[in-house]
Amino acid sequence: MLKLYYATGSCALASHIALEEAGARYEAVRLNFATNDQRKAEYLTLNPKGRVPALVTERGVLTETPAILAYVAQTYPKAQLAPRGDPFEFARVQAFNSYLCSTVHVAHAHRMRGYRWADDPDAIQAMRDKVPANIGECFELLERDMFAGPWVMGETYTICDPYLFTLAQWLEGDGVDPARFPKIHDHRIRMALRPAVKKVLAEPGHAVSRRGPVTIQGGS
Amino acid sequence: MLKLYYATGSCALASHIALEEAGARYEAVRLNFATNDQRKAEYLTLNPKGRVPALVTERGVLTETPAILAYVAQTYPKAQLAPRGDPFEFARVQAFNSYLCSTVHVAHAHRMRGYRWADDPDAIQAMRDKVPANIGECFELLERDMFAGPWVMGETYTICDPYLFTLAQWLEGDGVDPARFPKIHDHRIRMALRPAVKKVLAEPGHAVSRRGPVTIQGGS
Repeated sequence: MLKLYYATGSCALASHIALEEAGARYEAVRLNFATNDQRKAEYLTLNPKGRVPALVTERGVLTETPAILAYVAQTYPKAQLAPRGDPFEFARVQAFNSYLCSTVHVAHAHRMRGYRWADDPDAIQAMRDKVPANIGECFELLERDMFAGPWVMGETYTICDPYLFTLAQWLEGDGVDPARFPKIHDHRIRMALRPAVKKVLAEPGHAVSRRGPVTIQGGS
Repeated sequence: MLKLYYATGSCALASHIALEEAGARYEAVRLNFATNDQRKAEYLTLNPKGRVPALVTERGVLTETPAILAYVAQTYPKAQLAPRGDPFEFARVQAFNSYLCSTVHVAHAHRMRGYRWADDPDAIQAMRDKVPANIGECFELLERDMFAGPWVMGETYTICDPYLFTLAQWLEGDGVDPARFPKIHDHRIRMALRPAVKKVLAEPGHAVSRRGPVTIQGGS
């Protein structure tokens, strides 16, 4: 059985939702970042990066959200979470998720994890100060040029949707008003109503995040 | 015909090499970042992100290196640049490339493009100061835990190889001694000897980079 390692308020939420949408049999294991579970020897043996998500499969461990999402889509094809047999459409999905991981998530990380890129406390504060503007720009691009609607890729729900939802959950914590992005805000409300998303958000650690609210009002 | 937009010393080198390895028919168009070609209206219409690479296909434009690399591998299957019909092995390839784009490239970008994440000049300098340590750590992980050898994934050359080669080309410019990573250093030398790589490096803009040397000694 698959085993997903996740942490409170982390991007592992995207993989967690995808597993649920796929109807996969899996166990979700929560790491406590407050006690540095992710840096303990037992976990580092599994995932030397010391981060989440990590998905343990019978063939080995997978890391990195875009890779895990594609794996879930491809191993549960009945759930139709990614285009099959169409390299162009599949690449569009991967491009969207790659932008989220390499640009949007990175912009967000400069709020709480600036120590990754500088040691000086003033520099870390300077990074934190720029997060609202940076995240705002990222979501402007997403809203204007990348979000087809009603789902990210258009009429079909894909692995892009839980990933966008996950990062959109961080907007308030990042000091950005979600109402600036009406299409993505509406998407977030519809996502939160999906049974798979409700189920995952009810699990320990996903419902309350130290990075900002993860449950939102609306829709019902 | 495919059209690849690239710039001197950029990560577009990876996609450029992959197209060449695949035997694709393509045109390579160089943007001059010094004159801000990537921010001009004509290019922004094509790629609103204002970055490279961008691959123009007959069905639309693709961006983001991991997505373009997967697309090239899947549309030129005879070149066998990625595992086919094996979601786990394909996910391992995607995980490797995702780590390069979201962690290694980002660590590197803090040397020349710190202004993306802070406005204060001292903060930008503080980021620059940490680049050698950060890039060193990334390559330690790559060398120790992620590089199978002789190619990234093992016996078979994949789309991971040109991407690793591209980022390894930046080591000296980032203040990191490539000799610290013997397996990756050897890989870089063998990569530079491949006909596809030689051909691409001979094109305008790839041979001399303002970020550091892109041609290396050794092998022959």
